[in-house]
Amino acid sequence: MSEELELKNEKTENENHIEGRNAVLEAYRSGKTVDKLYIQDGLRDSVIASILREAKKKDTIISFISKQKLDQMSDTGKHQGVIAMCSSYEYSEMEDIFALAENKGEDPFVIILDELEDPHNLGAIIRTANLCGAHGVIIPKRRAVGLTSTVVKASAGALNYTPVVKVTNISKTIEELKERGLWFACADMGGEVMYKANLTGPIGLVIGNEGSGVSRLVKEKCDYIVSIPMKGDIDSLNASVACGVLAYEIVRQRMK
Amino acid sequence: MSEELELKNEKTENENHIEGRNAVLEAYRSGKTVDKLYIQDGLRDSVIASILREAKKKDTIISFISKQKLDQMSDTGKHQGVIAMCSSYEYSEMEDIFALAENKGEDPFVIILDELEDPHNLGAIIRTANLCGAHGVIIPKRRAVGLTSTVVKASAGALNYTPVVKVTNISKTIEELKERGLWFACADMGGEVMYKANLTGPIGLVIGNEGSGVSRLVKEKCDYIVSIPMKGDIDSLNASVACGVLAYEIVRQRMK
Repeated sequence: MSEELELKNEKTENENHIEGRNAVLEAYRSGKTVDKLYIQDGLRDSVIASILREAKKKDTIISFISKQKLDQMSDTGKHQGVIAMCSSYEYSEMEDIFALAENKGEDPFVIILDELEDPHNLGAIIRTANLCGAHGVIIPKRRAVGLTSTVVKASAGALNYTPVVKVTNISKTIEELKERGLWFACADMGGEVMYKANLTGPIGLVIGNEGSGVSRLVKEKCDYIVSIPMKGDIDSLNASVACGVLAYEIVRQRMK
Repeated sequence: MSEELELKNEKTENENHIEGRNAVLEAYRSGKTVDKLYIQDGLRDSVIASILREAKKKDTIISFISKQKLDQMSDTGKHQGVIAMCSSYEYSEMEDIFALAENKGEDPFVIILDELEDPHNLGAIIRTANLCGAHGVIIPKRRAVGLTSTVVKASAGALNYTPVVKVTNISKTIEELKERGLWFACADMGGEVMYKANLTGPIGLVIGNEGSGVSRLVKEKCDYIVSIPMKGDIDSLNASVACGVLAYEIVRQRMK
């Protein structure tokens, strides 16, 4: 997703944006989750330095952009060189996913989204995760849609039950989860037909970007590459539909 | 969907609206598919009478509305009491579906949408229909989204291959297709778990409205009521995800 498109999306999708130095600093100090921080290029003073310190502590994505761009993003016209994009919803921690699986006495089942862009798809996938019995959804910090208000709405309440965890690096997260016993399957053409793959046991299902699919680095970390039978003329299913079809193949195999 | 919402959707979704008496009459005479016709309440003259005659021949849905509402819908401000909403795409005939199945030497497989409202869902379902090997999609004329430009885009090219047929009455269409050998399954909670139902042979899969599901009259016409296993806390999957999961259960059973 281009930086410009991302800016536009943030503006239209995410109603929780906070403008002005003190408001942003206060948001950090009150523990609010800041998805992204925009700082005017070249600004250097003690309040900005404090904001940057907080942002680094929380590992926020920081973009330095021109005053003109900040003016475009601003609702109030009084951004003072700082706009923070806050999540419409609180993210969960990885341990919440494992706790949920343990409470249910089930093998962990997580859905990992590699650079998904469309908020309707993310909402529909969180909804699917809840109903197929997945214990959580993992999304990356960069180049992906976060929990915007559109996503909250499209999730139809599932966000109240299913943890969504945001991580810095999907490949690294897959490595860590492998050490905790999970196997990873990603969807890609040319993989083994899903009905024949063994998708039981502790599992992570990886779904790629709407246009470009699962990235090479992430695909290389996966244990299985599985495919959905394609009997038609076009290239691919909608990402949330593909996720649903694969997730329910896991359900079917787990129920046997 | 309320009349007001429907008007708003038409305005934002459907770029192909034609305004003015001669333009609309010409659209009919050139064979364009008019999804809906809006006529100003109380207008009676020979051109309006000609338009109404054409509309009745083509079985168009006609709404008589106030001049004020037409003014709101109008882009040009020159509607002359007549606005026609044209499809962004040509609909197919029922015989196209049967011809496609016959050409492929397969049992007919159709997806029937009972009052689906969301254009993204309709687009995603046409995409799914193409890839799961369904031979067509059937939608109703009333209280449902048609082939708007958003649908065309969301279908990702599938509309070029998969016939979409518009019918006046879904229940009656199910009756007619039963006489041609199809069995009908609809998705509803409380039905038999899909893995245990026999979904092979000539089949129609019925998907309901996003909020209210399959209507009672349509459900009564179905041979099977099947359910997707629900292991979560919320009520239902997104409609296009549910359609994908069920369609691929049909694929799995057909592949065995």
